[in-house]
Amino acid sequence: MSPSQEVDVRRNLLAANAAAADALRERFAAAGTLVVNLISAPGSGKTTLLEKSVAPLRAAGLRLAALEGDIATERDAERLRAAGIPAHQIVTGGTCHLDARLVAAGLEKAAFGALDVLFIENVGNLVCPTSYDLGEDFKVALLSVTEGEDKPFKYPGIFARAEITVVTKADLLAHVPFRLDEARAQVRALRPDGRWIVTSATTGQGLDEWCAELTARAAAKRAARG
Amino acid sequence: MSPSQEVDVRRNLLAANAAAADALRERFAAAGTLVVNLISAPGSGKTTLLEKSVAPLRAAGLRLAALEGDIATERDAERLRAAGIPAHQIVTGGTCHLDARLVAAGLEKAAFGALDVLFIENVGNLVCPTSYDLGEDFKVALLSVTEGEDKPFKYPGIFARAEITVVTKADLLAHVPFRLDEARAQVRALRPDGRWIVTSATTGQGLDEWCAELTARAAAKRAARG
Repeated sequence: MSPSQEVDVRRNLLAANAAAADALRERFAAAGTLVVNLISAPGSGKTTLLEKSVAPLRAAGLRLAALEGDIATERDAERLRAAGIPAHQIVTGGTCHLDARLVAAGLEKAAFGALDVLFIENVGNLVCPTSYDLGEDFKVALLSVTEGEDKPFKYPGIFARAEITVVTKADLLAHVPFRLDEARAQVRALRPDGRWIVTSATTGQGLDEWCAELTARAAAKRAARG
Repeated sequence: MSPSQEVDVRRNLLAANAAAADALRERFAAAGTLVVNLISAPGSGKTTLLEKSVAPLRAAGLRLAALEGDIATERDAERLRAAGIPAHQIVTGGTCHLDARLVAAGLEKAAFGALDVLFIENVGNLVCPTSYDLGEDFKVALLSVTEGEDKPFKYPGIFARAEITVVTKADLLAHVPFRLDEARAQVRALRPDGRWIVTSATTGQGLDEWCAELTARAAAKRAARG
């Protein structure tokens, strides 16, 4: 296959995805459901952040559910169900990202009912998920302080596209050579209007700020439905 | 594009890659160069492990070089050159893995000369690089203790294919909920004959074992050239 054929293939895939994503977005708008697409490297703490968000968001009266993307295992959906949130696992079987058609099929199977917030936890990967619109309201990039502060410039696509960057595992800052100000400068260069929230699931740092942001956005989404 | 067309596309890409990888492998065999394909999540410490390996491997008389794969930035090659090892950056421009053709083109540009060990540091990603043979002698999977011990079963492809799993950042074990025995059991289930090396670039733990393994394999590769 020639390089130009490869480009055609990719363009066709993304066009098919965009159509499916538009259909999802219309459906989420009609339902007033805020949809959050969480993207990070493997092990940055996406599932843990969601586990810690369930109680405060429930206390704010929000109906929650999660679609979990992984290439193998049902583990993340099981963790979230144990935390009290309806969750459906989408096993991609080797594919390195979710796409809008997988999300539509997953929603069909999950049959969550009415929701205020749907979390979509993408496959752990800073590259592939970046290009695939899932009909979400916004993307969230997670960056663990154990990964090094050079990651935004090394994976610029996701940090440019994410409306919110959540720094995770801030409790480990004393033990790793991660300069928060350098990471923040890189993210600001890539996404000047992006929101920056520093969290630790261990100490609880930043979780109020994260949940308040989601609560406000969910209220705005419901209000837009009119 | 239909699912069966997508499968055809993928099959064609992998067939083209396999042919290019075979050509590389012949060339490395003729040169007696040991080739190590390093794969991990972003921020697991591939570049840091190589930085720490330069002095001991040089002391063993080995001629080293590195090809660095990243979707953006020249940062890793710069770090390795600063550590005293010739390094060439392959910027994939969005593609989530190296392939054999990129490696061949990178070697052409780099013009490293005679080598005992060539390190190929893949794009930080536990999924895409798994399927692409780069003509290497073996794959090494890195797993940082900060990523959680569930990762081998969540990303089984790479942990099944890697002859060596290097656990990194072991100095952080006291601060994270990572059970070494659970991770080791998962890796053993996926790759019963795999080598398991626990390291910390901060304390130096395991680096002797890692370098001794490479030195022995490099000697075997040279001997096989006859």
